[in-house]
Amino acid sequence: MANLLVIHGPNLNLLGTREPKHYGSTTLEAINARLEQQAVQAGHRLTCFQANAEYALIERIQATIHEDIHFIIINPAAFTHTSIALRDVLTAVAIPFIEVHLSNIHGREAFRRYSYFSDIAEGVISGLGPIGYELALQAALARFLPP
Amino acid sequence: MANLLVIHGPNLNLLGTREPKHYGSTTLEAINARLEQQAVQAGHRLTCFQANAEYALIERIQATIHEDIHFIIINPAAFTHTSIALRDVLTAVAIPFIEVHLSNIHGREAFRRYSYFSDIAEGVISGLGPIGYELALQAALARFLPP
Amino acid sequence: MANLLVIHGPNLNLLGTREPKHYGSTTLEAINARLEQQAVQAGHRLTCFQANAEYALIERIQATIHEDIHFIIINPAAFTHTSIALRDVLTAVAIPFIEVHLSNIHGREAFRRYSYFSDIAEGVISGLGPIGYELALQAALARFLPP
Amino acid sequence: MANLLVIHGPNLNLLGTREPKHYGSTTLEAINARLEQQAVQAGHRLTCFQANAEYALIERIQATIHEDIHFIIINPAAFTHTSIALRDVLTAVAIPFIEVHLSNIHGREAFRRYSYFSDIAEGVISGLGPIGYELALQAALARFLPP
Amino acid sequence: MANLLVIHGPNLNLLGTREPKHYGSTTLEAINARLEQQAVQAGHRLTCFQANAEYALIERIQATIHEDIHFIIINPAAFTHTSIALRDVLTAVAIPFIEVHLSNIHGREAFRRYSYFSDIAEGVISGLGPIGYELALQAALARFLPP
Amino acid sequence: MANLLVIHGPNLNLLGTREPKHYGSTTLEAINARLEQQAVQAGHRLTCFQANAEYALIERIQATIHEDIHFIIINPAAFTHTSIALRDVLTAVAIPFIEVHLSNIHGREAFRRYSYFSDIAEGVISGLGPIGYELALQAALARFLPP
Amino acid sequence: MANLLVIHGPNLNLLGTREPKHYGSTTLEAINARLEQQAVQAGHRLTCFQANAEYALIERIQATIHEDIHFIIINPAAFTHTSIALRDVLTAVAIPFIEVHLSNIHGREAFRRYSYFSDIAEGVISGLGPIGYELALQAALARFLPP
Amino acid sequence: MANLLVIHGPNLNLLGTREPKHYGSTTLEAINARLEQQAVQAGHRLTCFQANAEYALIERIQATIHEDIHFIIINPAAFTHTSIALRDVLTAVAIPFIEVHLSNIHGREAFRRYSYFSDIAEGVISGLGPIGYELALQAALARFLPP
Amino acid sequence: MANLLVIHGPNLNLLGTREPKHYGSTTLEAINARLEQQAVQAGHRLTCFQANAEYALIERIQATIHEDIHFIIINPAAFTHTSIALRDVLTAVAIPFIEVHLSNIHGREAFRRYSYFSDIAEGVISGLGPIGYELALQAALARFLPP
Amino acid sequence: MANLLVIHGPNLNLLGTREPKHYGSTTLEAINARLEQQAVQAGHRLTCFQANAEYALIERIQATIHEDIHFIIINPAAFTHTSIALRDVLTAVAIPFIEVHLSNIHGREAFRRYSYFSDIAEGVISGLGPIGYELALQAALARFLPP
Amino acid sequence: MANLLVIHGPNLNLLGTREPKHYGSTTLEAINARLEQQAVQAGHRLTCFQANAEYALIERIQATIHEDIHFIIINPAAFTHTSIALRDVLTAVAIPFIEVHLSNIHGREAFRRYSYFSDIAEGVISGLGPIGYELALQAALARFLPP
Amino acid sequence: MANLLVIHGPNLNLLGTREPKHYGSTTLEAINARLEQQAVQAGHRLTCFQANAEYALIERIQATIHEDIHFIIINPAAFTHTSIALRDVLTAVAIPFIEVHLSNIHGREAFRRYSYFSDIAEGVISGLGPIGYELALQAALARFLPP
Repeated sequence: MANLLVIHGPNLNLLGTREPKHYGSTTLEAINARLEQQAVQAGHRLTCFQANAEYALIERIQATIHEDIHFIIINPAAFTHTSIALRDVLTAVAIPFIEVHLSNIHGREAFRRYSYFSDIAEGVISGLGPIGYELALQAALARFLPP
Repeated sequence: MANLLVIHGPNLNLLGTREPKHYGSTTLEAINARLEQQAVQAGHRLTCFQANAEYALIERIQATIHEDIHFIIINPAAFTHTSIALRDVLTAVAIPFIEVHLSNIHGREAFRRYSYFSDIAEGVISGLGPIGYELALQAALARFLPP
Repeated sequence: MANLLVIHGPNLNLLGTREPKHYGSTTLEAINARLEQQAVQAGHRLTCFQANAEYALIERIQATIHEDIHFIIINPAAFTHTSIALRDVLTAVAIPFIEVHLSNIHGREAFRRYSYFSDIAEGVISGLGPIGYELALQAALARFLPP
Repeated sequence: MANLLVIHGPNLNLLGTREPKHYGSTTLEAINARLEQQAVQAGHRLTCFQANAEYALIERIQATIHEDIHFIIINPAAFTHTSIALRDVLTAVAIPFIEVHLSNIHGREAFRRYSYFSDIAEGVISGLGPIGYELALQAALARFLPP
Repeated sequence: MANLLVIHGPNLNLLGTREPKHYGSTTLEAINARLEQQAVQAGHRLTCFQANAEYALIERIQATIHEDIHFIIINPAAFTHTSIALRDVLTAVAIPFIEVHLSNIHGREAFRRYSYFSDIAEGVISGLGPIGYELALQAALARFLPP
Repeated sequence: MANLLVIHGPNLNLLGTREPKHYGSTTLEAINARLEQQAVQAGHRLTCFQANAEYALIERIQATIHEDIHFIIINPAAFTHTSIALRDVLTAVAIPFIEVHLSNIHGREAFRRYSYFSDIAEGVISGLGPIGYELALQAALARFLPP
Repeated sequence: MANLLVIHGPNLNLLGTREPKHYGSTTLEAINARLEQQAVQAGHRLTCFQANAEYALIERIQATIHEDIHFIIINPAAFTHTSIALRDVLTAVAIPFIEVHLSNIHGREAFRRYSYFSDIAEGVISGLGPIGYELALQAALARFLPP
Repeated sequence: MANLLVIHGPNLNLLGTREPKHYGSTTLEAINARLEQQAVQAGHRLTCFQANAEYALIERIQATIHEDIHFIIINPAAFTHTSIALRDVLTAVAIPFIEVHLSNIHGREAFRRYSYFSDIAEGVISGLGPIGYELALQAALARFLPP
Repeated sequence: MANLLVIHGPNLNLLGTREPKHYGSTTLEAINARLEQQAVQAGHRLTCFQANAEYALIERIQATIHEDIHFIIINPAAFTHTSIALRDVLTAVAIPFIEVHLSNIHGREAFRRYSYFSDIAEGVISGLGPIGYELALQAALARFLPP
Repeated sequence: MANLLVIHGPNLNLLGTREPKHYGSTTLEAINARLEQQAVQAGHRLTCFQANAEYALIERIQATIHEDIHFIIINPAAFTHTSIALRDVLTAVAIPFIEVHLSNIHGREAFRRYSYFSDIAEGVISGLGPIGYELALQAALARFLPP
Repeated sequence: MANLLVIHGPNLNLLGTREPKHYGSTTLEAINARLEQQAVQAGHRLTCFQANAEYALIERIQATIHEDIHFIIINPAAFTHTSIALRDVLTAVAIPFIEVHLSNIHGREAFRRYSYFSDIAEGVISGLGPIGYELALQAALARFLPP
Repeated sequence: MANLLVIHGPNLNLLGTREPKHYGSTTLEAINARLEQQAVQAGHRLTCFQANAEYALIERIQATIHEDIHFIIINPAAFTHTSIALRDVLTAVAIPFIEVHLSNIHGREAFRRYSYFSDIAEGVISGLGPIGYELALQAALARFLPP
């Protein structure tokens, strides 16, 4: 059994209520519920956490030091392009992670092209909307399958 | 009657006490008092908010979803050049806003030249000191005048 | 009593007749009339000048050497991004000035981002349409108020 | 029922035999077989095509004009960073597509950072190995689900 | 019947007398005469204008507001690379235009590579010498042909 | 009598059927037919060649070594921005050529701004649609006119 | 007697437990204890503060306005490269400071090369591990020595 | 006997009255008088011309086609960095010239570093004040000395 | 005994017949014959391959998987600067190679300065004409000498 | 007992006599004397060397091959930004070193920002004046302490 | 009476014997002799020094500390673009200087465009050949004229 | 009979003793001996020279003016990327030369990518170790072969 942690960055608490063109109309609660359900069905455990504060995200990830987290799925949202501190904590805890973006960051403003996370991530899924999280979950769980 | 929100970014709570060469000697309280008075005199309502924390600014702006705010005047201070998350929340709530800077950001360090807000703002007022807020207020109120 | 000079750059004589999306529908005559009236009401004098020729703008500003001009409000229009000669004459006459732009230059083509004037201006007002000139006038006049 | 086309770029025919560190040890045949099986199981049809020649990939995609292809999954491999012609044909046939990369292109040479495809793709999945294709297939099929 | 305007930028009055390697040996008068004749033969009217002063070119184009000009052929010469004001007036009058260069601007100094006009032009013809104007005329007239 | 060769790059075989906004609705066959007819009427010979493969274009141009081709009209399409090999063969055979683009490459994505051909071309015609080829043909034929 | 303040940025609370290759195996508590002891032995007072939140660091430094702090030793960690707000508060309180980095920021990722603090610091010590703090303390105390 | 032409660019008519730190306190009339006198004493003729208008400078230089001018001394002032048209007319008339700057353009703003004239000038003299013109005159006259 | 493979990129089949200034007057056949002879004389085997098609070069190198090739000498010609796919196949087969250029790529156009091959090559020989291949052969054979 | 070598680059022999604002008023002799004394007191040996010639510095460091030097403290002065040869010899002798700068190189001209030494140094101390050398010495000696 | 020092950089000892196109045919001895004679005639003293070694130039300038040198004329030759150490010694001795170049450094390779000396020089004279030194001498001596 | 000169730049005297990964284990003496022997065997004369001082290399090359040197083989080592003075002397003496590098400069630090010599060299050989000198010698001698 694996423990997974899903991290959502700033403004993702607004999901489903604002800018549906970029982010779709599903709420964060719905996304989290589906992810938890799918993890449980596969015999694993999954926790979700959202914060608008960089420090809260950092300290949630620091807390994994005293937990037994095997994998992180993270959508750093705007912090993708600005937070080296968040990158550093992921490096520090040394838990493999997949970076997820709901919208296609390559088709938007130029400053969304650079990510402080992609080069140290296991992989990146972007532009596919809420299903992107579920695909990341599958990729993560595939690691814990008996061969 | 219009509801206006004035947002002040990090370190602006020090206004009037530090670096008068760049920021003048008026305190933030004095600025806020004048703005509120002018709004009220014109038959409108105006609220002010300052925070040194990016998340506090984001969440204050998120809160407008449940209020009836018609216009925002924002001085993002140092976050002007670094906070995509603050830009994102302004885009998400879709309330028109004017960006204000007390000092002339073009006459200082090169890293103060780029703003994550100017291209999505209604307009920008910089370098005019505390009166810049009052001018922004006038420009905002002009929108609510009978033609 | 203060003497103010308002300088309008190339193509601003077309104002109110062309590209209302960027520049609004008010004519330059109407803008000038309002500015003159507001200055007079405040007990000051204000003169306006528009030219499509860079040299005419330069020579108008050179002429202030023999006048008693206390403040300049200038919308350099396209020359904002190309005329060092216009910058030089402003430095030479050493009269404080505010730079005004009708449209939001940050939300248009990349080559409109750089201004040869902003770093030596008292302040910059952009994107607010014709009211931007009036706000600049207020900021200028505030300098001549009894404390 | 949907028709899907999977396109593999240059050197992917070597998959499973070379550089397992970057590309894993599964062969292209195995990947294609799994994808076809999964599509069929979901009631759809899926065809795979690999070529080392840019023109062959272009002409395969041009051929969709006379087919009824609803979605493309493409791993342009090295052409990701060099082929505008391949981008152009995808734009021309106007079939939605997902871009897949086996290895994490952000963690390798700098010239692998730029993709001529990402800004016009529905989404991008990179770094997850062969399972990346299967996730792309799921994302594609999710479009054809009854709501 | 269409009215066409041909605009020649700075130093083109020297044409045919200087630097034949770059600009050929035909005079501007000869070019204008041919263009006028060809337009008349096709049942249209064509006027030519040359100036070394940016403002004169701007004001000639502004004057089209009170004329009935359907198309402009412009060789901005050195202003190609430096005049945003000339670009702005073309945008303001909103008359379609073709940009012509006698010499191959791509085979000369690096600073001749960028044009402030090409992205808003109908098309660009460069490097073909005086015949370039005639080709531009044909392309313009083709718009006024009965289908 | 002159022999002319017209070279069309990748995806131009789709002309007239796809993306009419950028490329118009005339087919390549129609363009070729008109060019051949116009050349014949002027007493010359003209051959057309299209390929999606870079090597095929290269080898077609290499083949001119054993023909008596006096002029090339080439639309390198996407290869404009990526193929040094195609540039090299044009330099090698040393036949003068005009570069043609149907769409205005200056008004599209930034990566379409640079051409590997323009600095060695006789001239460039872009943005005028299919008539651009005919204008290039006229410019080419003008070389073979009795003075 | 001098009052010194030591500021530690994000993730430094993990010190000694994570990534010993970059940051060594001494805990932050041990570092702080040694610094306090050395200050006291020299007849001074020294306080330490760590936070993962940018605002907490800012407000700690703002608080020095009401204290009598003579010198700051700061390791901004990841904020070195991203926080203009932290730079601004150091400028605002105008207390001299030394910037310390445990690891050699020049030998790591390119984005760690730029510091928003170095140009306004008294000095910079980097790459020497925990002893770097002690050296900074000595340099600071040397200022308070009788000549 | 040689004929020399001295060209002064925009704002140089203000010389001696403004910004003595950059430009000294000698008037343009005094400079011109000295230059004319020195040329006459050496048995040559020298004419001076100043204009704030780019076109006036261009047309003055064009006029040399009908004169017998052997050398030009030019201080393009602000046009040094912006006027390709002025460069072009100097290339067109093909008269050798020396570029003079009163102030040290290397010690001022970054945008004064690039000159459109230096690479085609015989030589450049900058930073030496009014005597720079006289040195340029000597260098020019040295060409007309009997060996 | 060693097996060597010599790969020639696009347009090298024209060698000896075109642009002798850059490429000399020796034909590719002559070069290949000399290389084969020298290899045989040294007791080794050497095969040569030229193609104008990138895919043909890729597939020739892929074919080495089923051969026993110990060393590759490659002149990628124009593909030096554009083909990541060719680089990838060399990495995939993991055979050591030397990069050869006939002309001095550093003394030509700027776009010839960057090579996608040099950083993974054993070495690079450029500018020495056909003898460059022979020197590369010697360097390769030196590896197979008894110590 | 450890042997240490202190290397001073060009113009540091002027120390204490010139530009006290940047470099302080202590002479190099005084610095060296203090360093030697402190090393001896700690039971080690320390030698100092200054040269204005790059080759002399290189050869002094080469000479360590025949000595038993355990650590180098180097202030490369102006060579910090220009001498790859000095970097190379430090790499060649493979002795750990600390880079010291008296002035704050981040607060001066832009060309002083890049160091050819920092990425291979143990650490860097800058801006602290002569005490910087002493701190470097302590850091070096700390390596030779019994644990 | 003034003491002047003339400094010639590397390879200038070859003057008059090599590359007359760039450097003319006058020898350095002849130049020095003329300069000394002219200085003496004006009642001053002038010494010349040439070296190919950077350190020799640095130490010659350091030696002025014990002399009474009032002005330096320096042609740093290739060191213009590479020697910060030479710049530093000129700043250290704080003697005003003029920078001279025989050839037009703006009309040659791009790397000759940047000078480490121009921004701190009194002035720069370039492209005028050996007479450039004499003009520099005149400019220097003009400082010592009675008013 | 030809006279050849081999020039070795800084730190190459350490060859064979340091950093064998980059530079191999052969000493400079051994390399020189082999080169001299090979030259003599071919009936020519070859001299070798190494220096760590830039001026010594410059003056050795200047000395060829009084010798009869026909060809130079030079490994500028670290000076490859920093010495314009060394480039200038090679241009001045106008002796053809080949540039040799022992290690693959394209596979190391970015600052080793640019060479001040390659664009004026006959050719460049890099990455092949000591045999690179011998190959350069062969290429040089091939010039002196009877045809």
